[in-house]
Amino acid sequence: MLRIAVLGCGRIGVMHAANVCAHPRAQLAGVYDINSTAAENCGKVHGVRVFQSADEVFASPEVDAVLIATATSTHSDYIEAAVEAGKPVLCEKPIDLDLKRVELCKSRIAGTDLPIMLGFVRRFDPGHRAARQAMLSGEIGELHQIVITSRDPGMAPDTYIEASGGIFRDMTIHDFDLARFMLGEEVETVSAMGSRLVDPALMEKCNDYDTVVAVLVTKSGKQAIITNSREAAYGYDQRVELFGSKGMVISENRHENHVTKHLRHATNVASPLLNFFIERYEDAFKAEIGHFVDVVEDGAPLEVGFEDGRLALILAEAAFTSIEEGRAVRIGETARS
Amino acid sequence: MLRIAVLGCGRIGVMHAANVCAHPRAQLAGVYDINSTAAENCGKVHGVRVFQSADEVFASPEVDAVLIATATSTHSDYIEAAVEAGKPVLCEKPIDLDLKRVELCKSRIAGTDLPIMLGFVRRFDPGHRAARQAMLSGEIGELHQIVITSRDPGMAPDTYIEASGGIFRDMTIHDFDLARFMLGEEVETVSAMGSRLVDPALMEKCNDYDTVVAVLVTKSGKQAIITNSREAAYGYDQRVELFGSKGMVISENRHENHVTKHLRHATNVASPLLNFFIERYEDAFKAEIGHFVDVVEDGAPLEVGFEDGRLALILAEAAFTSIEEGRAVRIGETARS
Amino acid sequence: MLRIAVLGCGRIGVMHAANVCAHPRAQLAGVYDINSTAAENCGKVHGVRVFQSADEVFASPEVDAVLIATATSTHSDYIEAAVEAGKPVLCEKPIDLDLKRVELCKSRIAGTDLPIMLGFVRRFDPGHRAARQAMLSGEIGELHQIVITSRDPGMAPDTYIEASGGIFRDMTIHDFDLARFMLGEEVETVSAMGSRLVDPALMEKCNDYDTVVAVLVTKSGKQAIITNSREAAYGYDQRVELFGSKGMVISENRHENHVTKHLRHATNVASPLLNFFIERYEDAFKAEIGHFVDVVEDGAPLEVGFEDGRLALILAEAAFTSIEEGRAVRIGETARS
Amino acid sequence: MLRIAVLGCGRIGVMHAANVCAHPRAQLAGVYDINSTAAENCGKVHGVRVFQSADEVFASPEVDAVLIATATSTHSDYIEAAVEAGKPVLCEKPIDLDLKRVELCKSRIAGTDLPIMLGFVRRFDPGHRAARQAMLSGEIGELHQIVITSRDPGMAPDTYIEASGGIFRDMTIHDFDLARFMLGEEVETVSAMGSRLVDPALMEKCNDYDTVVAVLVTKSGKQAIITNSREAAYGYDQRVELFGSKGMVISENRHENHVTKHLRHATNVASPLLNFFIERYEDAFKAEIGHFVDVVEDGAPLEVGFEDGRLALILAEAAFTSIEEGRAVRIGETARS
Repeated sequence: MLRIAVLGCGRIGVMHAANVCAHPRAQLAGVYDINSTAAENCGKVHGVRVFQSADEVFASPEVDAVLIATATSTHSDYIEAAVEAGKPVLCEKPIDLDLKRVELCKSRIAGTDLPIMLGFVRRFDPGHRAARQAMLSGEIGELHQIVITSRDPGMAPDTYIEASGGIFRDMTIHDFDLARFMLGEEVETVSAMGSRLVDPALMEKCNDYDTVVAVLVTKSGKQAIITNSREAAYGYDQRVELFGSKGMVISENRHENHVTKHLRHATNVASPLLNFFIERYEDAFKAEIGHFVDVVEDGAPLEVGFEDGRLALILAEAAFTSIEEGRAVRIGETARS
Repeated sequence: MLRIAVLGCGRIGVMHAANVCAHPRAQLAGVYDINSTAAENCGKVHGVRVFQSADEVFASPEVDAVLIATATSTHSDYIEAAVEAGKPVLCEKPIDLDLKRVELCKSRIAGTDLPIMLGFVRRFDPGHRAARQAMLSGEIGELHQIVITSRDPGMAPDTYIEASGGIFRDMTIHDFDLARFMLGEEVETVSAMGSRLVDPALMEKCNDYDTVVAVLVTKSGKQAIITNSREAAYGYDQRVELFGSKGMVISENRHENHVTKHLRHATNVASPLLNFFIERYEDAFKAEIGHFVDVVEDGAPLEVGFEDGRLALILAEAAFTSIEEGRAVRIGETARS
Repeated sequence: MLRIAVLGCGRIGVMHAANVCAHPRAQLAGVYDINSTAAENCGKVHGVRVFQSADEVFASPEVDAVLIATATSTHSDYIEAAVEAGKPVLCEKPIDLDLKRVELCKSRIAGTDLPIMLGFVRRFDPGHRAARQAMLSGEIGELHQIVITSRDPGMAPDTYIEASGGIFRDMTIHDFDLARFMLGEEVETVSAMGSRLVDPALMEKCNDYDTVVAVLVTKSGKQAIITNSREAAYGYDQRVELFGSKGMVISENRHENHVTKHLRHATNVASPLLNFFIERYEDAFKAEIGHFVDVVEDGAPLEVGFEDGRLALILAEAAFTSIEEGRAVRIGETARS
Repeated sequence: MLRIAVLGCGRIGVMHAANVCAHPRAQLAGVYDINSTAAENCGKVHGVRVFQSADEVFASPEVDAVLIATATSTHSDYIEAAVEAGKPVLCEKPIDLDLKRVELCKSRIAGTDLPIMLGFVRRFDPGHRAARQAMLSGEIGELHQIVITSRDPGMAPDTYIEASGGIFRDMTIHDFDLARFMLGEEVETVSAMGSRLVDPALMEKCNDYDTVVAVLVTKSGKQAIITNSREAAYGYDQRVELFGSKGMVISENRHENHVTKHLRHATNVASPLLNFFIERYEDAFKAEIGHFVDVVEDGAPLEVGFEDGRLALILAEAAFTSIEEGRAVRIGETARS
C-alpha cells in the first residue's frame, strides 16, 4: 500500500484524493490545504488526517509519497521539499510559470533517484494511448503529422486568466507534452500564431491570446499542429490525429452517452461532449494515479517526469517568442540539456 | 441505341423519361399518357413524339421497347400488349393489385422470350448492391438474418392510400422483393403484425395498416425482418442490415450532404435524409435503365422479372392473411410455380 | 450503510460483490456459495465473512439484504427464505425456468412489503435510459416501434445451453423486459420465429433455437421487434431503437475505445465492441446496486420487481408456443394478474 | 445555349468536355489539343469539331466561350487571346507558375468586362458550400478558425512534380483559395512549415516539400490552418472544418458508398474514400460548368475570377518564403491591388 498525501484540496486535489482512495494499492495518508476549511472537508469525506502545514506532510513518517495539487507558485518549493524529505512526487503541471525557477528547481533536485512525476494527464487517456499504441505497432507506418485539436468549453474567469501565465503555459502546455509523447523525438522548431477573438479586451489587458495555432517540427521533419481555443460552444473538444505513411489513427471526442437522435431537422444527433476535463479525462486521472503507484511500488519506468515538465514549458516560451517576433523559433540544444 | 417509349408521364414516368434520355445507349422514342397535357409537357421537354394512345406506341416500328409507368390497373394489359407486339418491357411495380389478374397475365405471356423487367428499383441501389456483394463474396459468412427498415417520410394522401391495395402491396412489396434478392432462396413462411398509429381513422376506413412488421423465413431458416412505417418525422429511412456467421454489413441511410454540425446542444448533427424515393434512389433509377438496356441490347441476364413481381405480391397477400388470421402463413409450393 | 450478503460466487456474483463494496452506502456483509472454494476466494478478496450455508445468511442479524446470484433452480427458494427472514432481495433473472414454480413463489410471498428486485440490468444502462428519457420527455412524440438488436458474441457451452431453459427464457428474457420497460403498456400479442443456424445439431438436441425474432404488440398497437442471435462474429451487439411520431432515438453499441483507424482498405474503423455483458453493462450493474440501495435505504420506488420477472417469463413461454403452433399468441388478462 | 470549346484533352479536359455536353444549356463547340490524337479521340466521343489550333478556336464564330485545360505554361497566353477575341474564359488553375507572368497578363487584360473564371473547383463542392452556407447564415456565429485537411492519395510522378512549381503552387493553391473563400476577408500573414517525408530524394532534387502546414491569419485575427500531404495511404482526404463563436461545421470526407462492415477485428468499417479528385469533386466540376453558364448567359455575378487566381498564387509564394526565411510573411497591401 502506497500512502499518498494530497497537498491542495481545490477541485483537482479533491478529485485526486478520491482516486487515491479508490486505488486498490494506494491509501490516502492525509490532506493539506492553505485553506483549512477545504482541507477539513476533504479529510472528512475520506476519514483521513488533515495536516496543518505542508512541512508536517513532508515530515510525516506515515506519508510515503506526495501529490502536489496546490497553486502553481508553490510547486517548485514543494517538489524540492519532497525530494529533501525523500518522498516521491506526483506534481500537477506546470512546475512553475517562470522557466528560471524551473531551472533552479532542476539544479536543486539534481541527482535524486526519487520519481518526480508530472501530471500531464492526457498521456493516460485510453483513447490517446490506444492511438499511440496503434502507431507504435506500425499500423500507420512512419509518423508524419500530428493534428491536436484542443478547445475549452468556455473562457475561464478573468482572475484565472491573469494568473495563468498565458495560454501557451496554461492550456497549450498539455498539447505540447502530448505532441512530444506522440512524436517520439524532440521538437526543433516552434512556430505560433495567436489571435484575440473570444474576449479581445481581456486578452489585450493580459497580453494574451485566446485562439492560437502552434506548429512544431522535429529534426527529421515530423510535424505537430496544435489548434486551441478558449471557448468552443459545443463543448470540450479533444481530438488527436496521427497521420503516417501507411494510414491514420484518430482519438475522437467523447460524448455523454451513446445515444443518437433523429428529428425533423437534424439526424444522427449525438449527446453533448463530456465537459470538462475532470469528466473527459476521468479514466486518465485514475490511470495516472495507477502509474504513479506502479512507479513507486514496483519500480516501473516513469513515463512522464520533471524534464517533460521543463521541456513543455520551453515550448510554451518559444511559442510566445514566435508570435512576438514573427518567426519560427529554434529550440537550442542547450535548452534541452 | 435502344428506342424506349415511356407510358405514363406522372412523377415517375417523367423521371424515367429523363433517365432514358441521359443514357448513352438509349433514346426516348416518345411518351404517352392518358392525360394528354402531361404527355405533351414531357414530350416538349425532350423534343420527342407524343403518342395519342398506348396502342399507337405498341404499333410503332420506331419503338424498340416500352417502359410502363402508368396507373397500376393498366400494367397487366400493357405487358400483354407489349408481348404481343414483340417489345421488351420495363414495368413499374406492382404488376397488379389482384393476384388473379397477375396469374392471368402470366398465363397469357407464357412462353415469351421477351425480357419483362419489373421496376424493383432498390435492387439497383449502389449501397444495397455493395452490401449484397460483400455477402456474396463471403465477407460475412453464411447469411442468417436480414433487417430491412423502410419508413416513408410522410403519409400519402387519402386517395392514394385508398387505391394502393394496402401497405403490403404498395410499400412493403419493395422490401419483400429486396429480401428475396438478398436471401438467395425462396421464402417459406410469412408472419406479419399491423397497427394503426399514424392515421387510425384512415387506416380503419381502408382496412389498412400504417405501421407494420413482417418476418419472412426460408426453408433453411434464414430470416428477414421488415419494419415499415408510413411516416418518419426525420425523413425517408432506408436501411438494410445483412447479418451472417462471420459478420454484418449495413447499407446505411443517405443524407443530403456530408456536413456535420456541432452546436451548443447537439453534436455530430448530420444533414436531413434524402427525401423522397426519387432523390434517395436517383442512382438506382439510372442503373435500372442501364440494366434494361444491357438486357435488351446485349442479352445480359435479366435480374428482376415478371416472376419476381408475382412472388412479391404473393408475400404481400400472405402478410395480410397472417394479420387477419393471427398465424404464420406458409407459401405453398404451388404458389411459386 | 446497507449490509448486503451475496449468495453465489460465480462470475456474476463476484462482480456484484465488488460493486457492493464500491458503493459508498453499501457494505458487503459476506458471501456464500455451494462451492466453498469459490466463496472463500471471493471472501478473501474483500476481507468479509464466508457463510457456510444459505440458511446462515438468512439467519444472520448482520445481513440487512441479500443478493441472489446462485443457480437459477435455487432462486425461488431463496426469495421465499429471504422474505420469511424479512430481508429485501435483489435476485438475478430468471425467477425460475418453470412458470408454475414462479406462480407458487408469488403466492408464497404474497402480501410482503419487502422489496424484491429483479436483476434486469439493461434497464440501468445509461444509454438505454437516456433513450427512454428522451422518449418520456416527448422528443420523439408517441412511441410506435421499438427495435431491439441483441446478439451474443459467441455460443455458450453445451452444458449451459442444455440447462438454460431455451433462448427465450435465457437470453431474450432481457429483451422482453427491456421492451416492457420502454413500451409503457402491457404486451397483448407475441409472435416469434426461430431458426437453427449457428449450431443446428446442438439446437436440435435441446429443442432450442439460436437465431430468433420476436414481435410484441400492445393493445394500442405499439410494436417491439426483437432480433437475437447466439453468435455475432463482430462482438456483443446491443442496440435499442425507439421510433415515434416525431422522431427516433437509438441507444447505440459501445466500443472498447473512441479511436478510429483509416487504412489502405478500410476507413473509419472503430475498435471492437465491448465484450461481454460484464464489460458492456459495467455501468448498468453498478447503477443496479445503487437503485437497490436507494429502494431499501430511502424507500425509493422499486423500478423492477418480482412481477416484472414473472411477466417476462410469460412472454418467453408465449414465444415458444408461437413457434410451435405457428400463430400469434395472446397474453391473457389472467396471466397478468 | 452556350457553345463552349475545350482546349486541352488530357484527363481534366476530357472530363470538362463531358460535363459541358451534359449541361442542358451548354454545348460542346469543339475541342483542341496540341496532341492531335487526344483531341480526335475526345471529339469523336462527342461528335464535335476538332480544331487544328488554338487560334482557330479563338477565331471561330461558332465558339461563344473557351474552357482552358491545357498545360499551365499556356494559360496566360490563351486568356489573353480569348479576351482579345471577346470570348469569356473558364481557365484551370493556376494562371501561371510565375507571378510576374500573371501580373503581365493582368495588365494586358485590364479593363475587360469579359468573365474570366478560374477553375478553383472546391468552391463548388456541395459539402464545402453547405458548410459555408451554415456559417453565412450565422449558425456557428463569428468565424474564428478554419482547418483544412487536404492529402492526396499518392505521390505524383517525378516529371509532374518537377514541373509543378512546388507543392504550394500546385496543390496547396486549392486550399489557399478555399481558405479565402471561407474567410471572407483577405489574408494578412502567412506562416508555413515544410518537410520531406514521403519521398525525401525527389523533394531534395526539386527543392520541394511533400508534407506541409500553412497558417493564414487575417487582419481581424481569423486563422486558417492547412495541412497537406502528397500521400495518404487511406485515400484522398478532403476535410474542411469551420470553427466559430457559436459552433463548428465540418465538411466531411466522402466515401465510395454508404455501406459499413462489422467484422471480427474491425467494426463500423466504411468504404474507401472517393479517389481521386475527378471522382471526389464530380458534383463540384459539374456545378463549376453550371456557374460558368449562369455567369455568361444570365449575367450572374462571377464567384471566382482572375484576381482570385492571382491572390492564391501570392499566398503560395509567401508560403515558400516563410519556410526559406523562417518567418511569418506579411502580404503587402500593394500585392493585393
